[in-house]
Amino acid sequence: TKEKKILTLAGDGIGPEIMEQALHILDWVQNNSALSFHVEKDLVGGASIDQNGIPLTKEVIAKAKAADAVLFGAVGGPKWDGIGFDKRPELGIIGLRKELGLFANLRSTIVFDSLVEASTIKPEVIKGLDIMIVRESTGGVYFGEPRGIETLSDGTRKGVNTEVYTSFEIERIARVAFDLARQRQGHVCSVEKSNVMESGLLWREVVTELHKKEYFDIPLSHMLADNCAMQLVKNPRQFDIILTSNLFGDILSDLGAMLTGSLGMLPSATLGARQQNGVIPALYEPIHGSAPDIAGQGKANPLALILSLAMMLRYSFDEQDTSEKVVNACKAVLDQGFRTPDIMSAGMKLVGTEEMGKAVLAEL
Amino acid sequence: TKEKKILTLAGDGIGPEIMEQALHILDWVQNNSALSFHVEKDLVGGASIDQNGIPLTKEVIAKAKAADAVLFGAVGGPKWDGIGFDKRPELGIIGLRKELGLFANLRSTIVFDSLVEASTIKPEVIKGLDIMIVRESTGGVYFGEPRGIETLSDGTRKGVNTEVYTSFEIERIARVAFDLARQRQGHVCSVEKSNVMESGLLWREVVTELHKKEYFDIPLSHMLADNCAMQLVKNPRQFDIILTSNLFGDILSDLGAMLTGSLGMLPSATLGARQQNGVIPALYEPIHGSAPDIAGQGKANPLALILSLAMMLRYSFDEQDTSEKVVNACKAVLDQGFRTPDIMSAGMKLVGTEEMGKAVLAEL
Ligand SMILES: CC(C)[C@H](C(=O)O)[C@@H](O)C(=O)O
Ligand SMILES: CC(C)[C@H](C(=O)O)[C@@H](O)C(=O)O
Repeated sequence: TKEKKILTLAGDGIGPEIMEQALHILDWVQNNSALSFHVEKDLVGGASIDQNGIPLTKEVIAKAKAADAVLFGAVGGPKWDGIGFDKRPELGIIGLRKELGLFANLRSTIVFDSLVEASTIKPEVIKGLDIMIVRESTGGVYFGEPRGIETLSDGTRKGVNTEVYTSFEIERIARVAFDLARQRQGHVCSVEKSNVMESGLLWREVVTELHKKEYFDIPLSHMLADNCAMQLVKNPRQFDIILTSNLFGDILSDLGAMLTGSLGMLPSATLGARQQNGVIPALYEPIHGSAPDIAGQGKANPLALILSLAMMLRYSFDEQDTSEKVVNACKAVLDQGFRTPDIMSAGMKLVGTEEMGKAVLAEL
Repeated sequence: TKEKKILTLAGDGIGPEIMEQALHILDWVQNNSALSFHVEKDLVGGASIDQNGIPLTKEVIAKAKAADAVLFGAVGGPKWDGIGFDKRPELGIIGLRKELGLFANLRSTIVFDSLVEASTIKPEVIKGLDIMIVRESTGGVYFGEPRGIETLSDGTRKGVNTEVYTSFEIERIARVAFDLARQRQGHVCSVEKSNVMESGLLWREVVTELHKKEYFDIPLSHMLADNCAMQLVKNPRQFDIILTSNLFGDILSDLGAMLTGSLGMLPSATLGARQQNGVIPALYEPIHGSAPDIAGQGKANPLALILSLAMMLRYSFDEQDTSEKVVNACKAVLDQGFRTPDIMSAGMKLVGTEEMGKAVLAEL
């Protein structure tokens, strides 16, 4: 098979440390599957600001577009707090989503059996939890115009953002959710705030129409975003796929991640539309952030990024077997008691980033 | 003392049942304090739609403006689902907030000792929790223009809402949070999404400036809304006062309410600016909704509305003692084991709405 081009963007904070471990796994995959990789590395976020003055360069965008998949660490940290809104590290990831047309952010919200006690939620409420959050990621208030801060004639100021969704954008992301539901033999809960926002009302209408036309076999429900936050705490296992906007998805997926008690374990994939050359643009990144407080200390949990790599094997390279091997290796090291500090509990073996990476490799 | 005018708007679903019990408590207050009340009742939400065709009439707005306080039940239900966006029952409460200038929605997020087991969160994480969420409630995306659904020339549609905050609005609500923090000897966490939204960036700047000028003695921190959702699950007791926008407040306060395991117990106050006649416009309502699924069955928990009444005694009528008596009576009936179905657990005494109301009265 043809060589796959991978662009790795480790970014800031713990990004570089965990990326190092993920690259060892990538080597293993190369040596133990039909896949071969051409890996290129570049800078994004604060690391790119330090080098190039901006969080995302044209060159990186071009490389990302030319790649078969992007493996992403994390961006941001207090170092760049005063940098200005138009240069902030977060534009690294927001810009990549937009430039590559990565509209479907799939956030895996699962509870690992061996970590069920790590959550603040009672084990009987979350055991076996397996939700996929399908978050729209190139629209909504993240990109809507007009936006900005204006000084009024009386010297006071006004800050404006615009939540905007077209029926095209809504239908496109809803399709992803319904297709996934079909694969999983699951059901979809579409979440908005249609009792307050017209954009949410349109969301509900478009999802309902598409469901009627093409996906009537998939159970569909609708829920308001405030109620969804409540229901996630009350009874998260009622959900299979949650379909929602960029902003609600940001909040609800972080909430969901924390419910699992396994934040340091959760991967995500962000996918675009299939290109003429057959490639589906894709970026894989952990749900956790750059954790500047523990950066450079060798304490970070590399498993979320390694599991993101497993998602890459599955979604971008159709390597289900190898993907499963990686996932199972991660589960096995947990079962063996290996724990980075973020998931440590009594009686387990405390390890660092590198040891954890090595343990997965050994298991493979 | 002068007679206080109270407008009661029971609304829909369980609203009327719980209001009945609250009115008994109001009678007791009248007979056992220096206060006397003139109570008027009217319709709001779906009940007003059924009678008048619209969820909030001019007459009700006028009565609410003339009242010293409004006691509110809840609005909405599937019966009015197809009614149209400009007539929906929710406009009952949204319209009242706007018309009366009730910009400060104070949501009490506390865990009752006797209900600590009712939550899905581990007791050791939430025991003693006492957060006050200060939610802006006359601005943001709830009211921002432009808004609406537009059909484009190619037949597709576009839904738009606008998040807008002025420095005046932000400073006004921040003042409420800081003043409360001073009273509570607490601290403020201001929540926005300033890494994505300029309106959130302005929010952070204005809160920071006000803090520097007038409230430097109060500990202040800032947090992104997605992180706040996580931190509420991870370690809710790190918070004292959460200061946030209308939309984030909607989601985070519902999340917080569910964490307590005591949703049916949580009151809120929504306050405006002091008028020339000295009155601060105020509306008191439970955080829970209209619960149409159990409406009319005598199962609803009246305690959140009774505790809202206690907030009214405290904030609107400066009757701290009587307010505390009501709060303590509610706690006492819980200690005695009385439970409506929403908070029922093994070994407790299952009661209905009326019995619960009577138990509080008996305790008083
Ligand atoms: C870094 C930030 C801009 C980003 C977002 O808000 O989308 C992050 O929170 C996420 O969820 O991926
Ligand atoms: C009923 C609804 C419009 C309302 C809101 O979104 O503000 C409710 O959820 C609340 O929190 O009071």
